[in-house]
Order: sequence, then structure tokens, then C-alpha cells
Amino acid sequence: MVAQNIYDDESFFAGYSTLPRSVQGLGGAPEWSTLRNLLPSTAERRIVDLGCGFGWFCRWAVENGAASVLGIDLSERMLSRARADTRAGNVVYEQQDLDRLALAPAAFDVAYSALTLHYLTDLSHFLGALAGALVPGGVFVFSVEHPIFTAPTNPAFVAADDGTVVWPLDGYLAEGERVTEWFAPGVIKQHRTIATYVSALIAAAFAIDDLVEWGPTAEQIAAVPDWAAERERPPFLLIRAHRQ
Amino acid sequence: MVAQNIYDDESFFAGYSTLPRSVQGLGGAPEWSTLRNLLPSTAERRIVDLGCGFGWFCRWAVENGAASVLGIDLSERMLSRARADTRAGNVVYEQQDLDRLALAPAAFDVAYSALTLHYLTDLSHFLGALAGALVPGGVFVFSVEHPIFTAPTNPAFVAADDGTVVWPLDGYLAEGERVTEWFAPGVIKQHRTIATYVSALIAAAFAIDDLVEWGPTAEQIAAVPDWAAERERPPFLLIRAHRQ
Repeated sequence: MVAQNIYDDESFFAGYSTLPRSVQGLGGAPEWSTLRNLLPSTAERRIVDLGCGFGWFCRWAVENGAASVLGIDLSERMLSRARADTRAGNVVYEQQDLDRLALAPAAFDVAYSALTLHYLTDLSHFLGALAGALVPGGVFVFSVEHPIFTAPTNPAFVAADDGTVVWPLDGYLAEGERVTEWFAPGVIKQHRTIATYVSALIAAAFAIDDLVEWGPTAEQIAAVPDWAAERERPPFLLIRAHRQ
Repeated sequence: MVAQNIYDDESFFAGYSTLPRSVQGLGGAPEWSTLRNLLPSTAERRIVDLGCGFGWFCRWAVENGAASVLGIDLSERMLSRARADTRAGNVVYEQQDLDRLALAPAAFDVAYSALTLHYLTDLSHFLGALAGALVPGGVFVFSVEHPIFTAPTNPAFVAADDGTVVWPLDGYLAEGERVTEWFAPGVIKQHRTIATYVSALIAAAFAIDDLVEWGPTAEQIAAVPDWAAERERPPFLLIRAHRQ
């Protein structure tokens, strides 16, 4: 299987480029401060960013002392902008399909992946390749769309009879492809349970350090009231693990 | 805080006693075979069962070679029947509120808890006491009602406009008390996220070995067609961890 390259679709790319996280970078993503707290120090570390997009995290890692950063993405459009926006000489960008990830053995101390793994069709291959590329004790921090978010046939809040807003959950245990419209029709994501993420990490010789089901804080909801519903069902799952 | 002792309520006890898992024992619980597969061998091991109910697991452990078994429950009614149903001399039953759990240090090799922890108000105290009572490498296997199951304001499937059956999820990130009617009015359970279970285990020096979001198999659904909807949202969360 080959991952869909939706980020190179012209209209998808145009839409995605307008998101706060695309325009403002890491600070435009409400979950970033939580993700940052899961990360070890990047100082003097060799970093790999799996699904690097525009390179915001790669540049942040270098600004925070990383020895070197490899940013990998499937989308040539995103890599092209990442290269144009990056001045540091110790950041390298590389085009790869993460479903066929190949990395040098024990070449990295820290791995990072933001909202990317739910596009992959072969999670076990990916984690096996990553485990081999991390030194023992090396840390992997990632975010994905939360399985509660990806599962439903109709992933949109509905008003229940009693006036409460509910998330119409179904299909949670039916893993596999979900096709939605998001800036373009036919965007393909892979729904997996939390159990599958955890078991696949453990099977690939990772130990779980922390697991966060992210929702906005009271302060964030005060600033953006529309986010209140996100606490009814978490939009993102964040995990920190280390290579044993 | 003290856990509610609903199992000593006369009408609750009468209703609970009619459940397949009460009448048939472990084999009457559809998730038992999965839970059993998470367990290490009980042969020659010192076992503690937290929330032992009628003692079905305690007797199973002895039949499977356990050196000794301590069954703990809050309900005197349940302990009374457990004692009456148990002949083995190496099983001891003890009344304790698990929210104030006190156990001898390093006295156990394996701990088990089935559908009990969602009643506790002080999970951190419980896990700390349990960690101290397990030898290093000691294994803890438990099941709880899945957080997706405990979260909603109205925890019952509803038919959506398009005919699909959905679980009306809300309140997932709002942890705390949930009051439902189950054999008796006013049954109090504590809703916690998966992240809270995982983080609390890690904070208490446990390492996560496996995590299962349980739903019925195709064979079980063929036997009991009404269970099909349970795959839309898992009813149980099962975790195996070991004391580091």
C-alpha cells in the first residue's frame, strides 16, 4: 500500500495553507504546548520529524539547540516551501512515503510526528523502521487524530433531543479507511483504536511514557468559545514512548 | 472519600445475582477469555483479587495452581457467599474499602481486578498501595467499564436520522461521578479517561504491557446477535501492567 498524497492536491494544499497552524506555525496549533511538554530537550540531539510539512518543528528544534534535524514528508509542495523557509544548514528535508520508511540504524535520539500517522496504512512497518533508527532510550513523541474523532460514519456534532450536543460515535472497533471531505473530497485517513497504537508501539519495542487525550483548556475556550465542544470528545491523541 | 457500597443494597444484590457472570462465573463474562489471555501463569503465585465479588476468580486461580489467594471486597453479602462457595484452604477473603486499600509490602506476585476500579474515588492511592504490595516484576491485570461507555449524559444507543445506531458521546474529558440506574437507582461510578488510567499506572511505577478495548467477536455476536452494537463503542477497557 502507498499512502495517499493529498497534500500535493492543489485545492487541498490551498485550503490547508490557510489554517492557523500553517500560517502561524507551532503556536497556531492549540495542542502544541502539550506536545512540547512531552518532548525531551532537543539540545545536542539528532532529530527526525516524520511528516514535517512546512518545517515549523524542524526550525523550532534547531532554534532549541538540536545537533541536526531530518524532516521527512510525502508532499513535494510542502517540502519545497519548507526548504524555502529554512536557513539553518543542519536541517535536511527528504521526500519519503512513511509507509515505506527507511532510515539509517541508530541515527536519531528524538523522533517527532504531528498529525501524520493516521494517514499511514502500515503502522507496524513504520514503527519497526523507526525503532531501528532510534538509539536505545531514544524518545518518540507524536500526535494523531483521536480514534473517537476518526471513527464515526458521520463525524460531526449533533444536537440531541434534550438539547445536549453529542458526538454520534459508531464504528469505533471497525478499524480501517475513513473517507472525508476536508479542503478536498476523498481525503483518506486510517481509523485505529487507542489499543492498536499502544500495542503496536509495545510490539515494536517501545515503552509507553505518557498518553494524553487532548482537549482545549478553559483559557483556550475563553479565547475561542467555539472550542468548548472539543471537550465532549477529544480531537487529538498524544503519546510519548521510548525505545527500549 | 469512601466508595459507595451498592452491592450490599438488597435490590441491587438481587438483580446483580441474576447476571450470567454471577450465575455461571467467569465463563458467563464475554470478556473473560481476553482477560485470561492477559494473565501470567498463576501456578505457585501469590494472588490478590481486588473486588473479588462471589470469589469466582479466586477459585479459578487456586484450580490453576496458585500458592495462595487473597480476595478483597467491600460487600459483606458478596464475601459471605464467596466464603460459602469456596472450599480451598489457601483462599482468604477480607473486607476492605479499596479506596483505603492497605496490603502487606511485596506480598503478591499477581494482582487482578475485574470491573471494580470505576467505583473508586482515589485511584492514585489504590495504585500506590498495590504497587507496594507487588514484588518487582509483579503483574496487574484489570478490566473497567470503558471511558467511552461511562462518559455520556445519556449512556444508551440512539438511532440516528440515517438509520445508523450511534452512541451519543459527550463529557469524555469531564472526569468524575456518573450516577445511573442499574438494578437500583443512584449507582455511582467514576468516569476517567484512558489517559488517566495509563498516566496513573505509570506514576505508580507500573509499566504498560498491553491495553485492549474489548468488543465481542464475530462468534459471540453470532451466538448473541444483540451484542453487535457493542462493537460501535467498546464496553470494557482491559490493561496489563507490571510493577517496575
